Amino acid sequence: MGKFLFFCFLFSTLAAVEDALPSWREGDIKSAIVNFVKETTDKNSPHFVPEESRIACFDQDGTLWVEQPVYTQVFFILETIQNMAKTRPEWSEKEPFKTILSGDKKAMARLDQKDIETVINAVHEGVTVEEFRNKVQEWLQIAVHPRFKKPFTKLVYQPMLELIQLFKNHHFQVYIVSGGGQEFMRAYCEAVYGIPPNRIIGTAGKVQYKDQEDRPALYMLPELLFVNDFAGKPEGINLVIGIKPAAAFGNSDGDQQMLEWTQSGKGKRLELLVHHDDSEREYAYDSQSKVGTFSEKLMSEAKKKGWLVVSMKNDWKKIFPD
Amino acid sequence: MGKFLFFCFLFSTLAAVEDALPSWREGDIKSAIVNFVKETTDKNSPHFVPEESRIACFDQDGTLWVEQPVYTQVFFILETIQNMAKTRPEWSEKEPFKTILSGDKKAMARLDQKDIETVINAVHEGVTVEEFRNKVQEWLQIAVHPRFKKPFTKLVYQPMLELIQLFKNHHFQVYIVSGGGQEFMRAYCEAVYGIPPNRIIGTAGKVQYKDQEDRPALYMLPELLFVNDFAGKPEGINLVIGIKPAAAFGNSDGDQQMLEWTQSGKGKRLELLVHHDDSEREYAYDSQSKVGTFSEKLMSEAKKKGWLVVSMKNDWKKIFPD
Repeated sequence: MGKFLFFCFLFSTLAAVEDALPSWREGDIKSAIVNFVKETTDKNSPHFVPEESRIACFDQDGTLWVEQPVYTQVFFILETIQNMAKTRPEWSEKEPFKTILSGDKKAMARLDQKDIETVINAVHEGVTVEEFRNKVQEWLQIAVHPRFKKPFTKLVYQPMLELIQLFKNHHFQVYIVSGGGQEFMRAYCEAVYGIPPNRIIGTAGKVQYKDQEDRPALYMLPELLFVNDFAGKPEGINLVIGIKPAAAFGNSDGDQQMLEWTQSGKGKRLELLVHHDDSEREYAYDSQSKVGTFSEKLMSEAKKKGWLVVSMKNDWKKIFPD
Repeated sequence: MGKFLFFCFLFSTLAAVEDALPSWREGDIKSAIVNFVKETTDKNSPHFVPEESRIACFDQDGTLWVEQPVYTQVFFILETIQNMAKTRPEWSEKEPFKTILSGDKKAMARLDQKDIETVINAVHEGVTVEEFRNKVQEWLQIAVHPRFKKPFTKLVYQPMLELIQLFKNHHFQVYIVSGGGQEFMRAYCEAVYGIPPNRIIGTAGKVQYKDQEDRPALYMLPELLFVNDFAGKPEGINLVIGIKPAAAFGNSDGDQQMLEWTQSGKGKRLELLVHHDDSEREYAYDSQSKVGTFSEKLMSEAKKKGWLVVSMKNDWKKIFPD
């Protein structure tokens, strides 16, 4: 190898080593992310953020993994109801279970808020937190996404996994802040994203502590404590974290307030939205999408406020891990 | 200096360097704490606990700082009401404010739950989280404990500060888990104990996010989200942390469930209760103590379950920092 070639090789190797975001195409978005991390973690930078304030919040559904055609948690609830029905023959004649068990999607879409709560409560009620997480883990072992024919936990976005790792490597405390169920997420987020239970903020149900015969347990109650979506996200962030994030990542209208809240902090902040515009490799959402709505209003707010909007089609070399 | 004297000096220096708990008298309690930390953080120990599971939860009032004659937060609320009354002349004729402003302690003791809520709500309502923390910080600058004539933030227990530091040095994630108000504690716990806002679990009020003219803020509502005391402690720990603590520290009946919950985890755990038996240097609680009740039932549970019970009088060389 000539000296010139050797140096080419050396530099390309170095570049590869240094590229923490190999699945991201070069461009303004990638540069903005990399610069943010550099500037907030370099002690000599005017934008330096001390470690205790390095909080990065990621929405989950549609930001870290696939949320179409419906949230993974909905599949879990529907399939769990199907399983539970085997020992509950009375459900075949009792609404809303009858509709759920019919599999008739149009009829299911007509269920109202109260019906849906009845179904969700049936899955949670009387179960301990520990049992519930085990149930979710068992289900994830066998459940398969209807389009991709893969386990849901494999349908995570490789570029976002790299982003999480980049932030962790720079001593950010990485949180998930999702409208999804907190205990549902805790069942797999450590294994899938390396994010432990104390970094998972989600919609939370009430639980009740009971110590029966010296075997203390937390029982899930059929009642919500708080809904961690839209304005509920900054409220949930305050409850669990107590300071404004330095960076926030979302993909839909439900993330707007979290990004506003993040941006309102002093000093340099990063706000990013993933835009689903890739029907070939994943999904292209449109104004009809009931899951993960990305409204015109959100897009105009993003532009006005300088939030990064990631085109999955153009900015991501790949969508899923190999 | 002779060789023998030199070695004496050397060894005593080494011992001092190695003694992370200089304010604790030698004995079973101190040994048990030191051994717990050693065994759970030594990779070659059968009791090794990986860093992500090293969670230590400390009650605050009566465990980390003085809680007599009443909780510091009660002083804050009463004095804030006195201050607010200056611009609210109508309060002088309106109950329960009239009673509070009278300073008549016997009459105040007769206020019922609803009266107390009215008073607490008056201090919180319509205030943003940020404004509230500032208010608390300002008050702590000038407030003085009636017996010790010192700022409340100086009335922290030196042995417990050493304990927190020992656990932090061994990469435990140290949380405060208190029945006190979460936002009240967040105002000073970072400065006083080095424990940041995302490690503070307390009784929490609801907040409401509003973005008025691009100035987002969280407004405190006159409604409780959850009470973090007794059974509420394991429930609050689950909400914020999501796994069982490896170690828990308390001082009263309100901590019993947190200690039970901690002990029910697999592997080596540590449970400790501070017993207030030192009327000279601090307080000796008795069965009449309304604040920080340490019942016979708790003492017998502690004995039965092998929880450490610290005698402030005998186990602590000093109570407060110099």
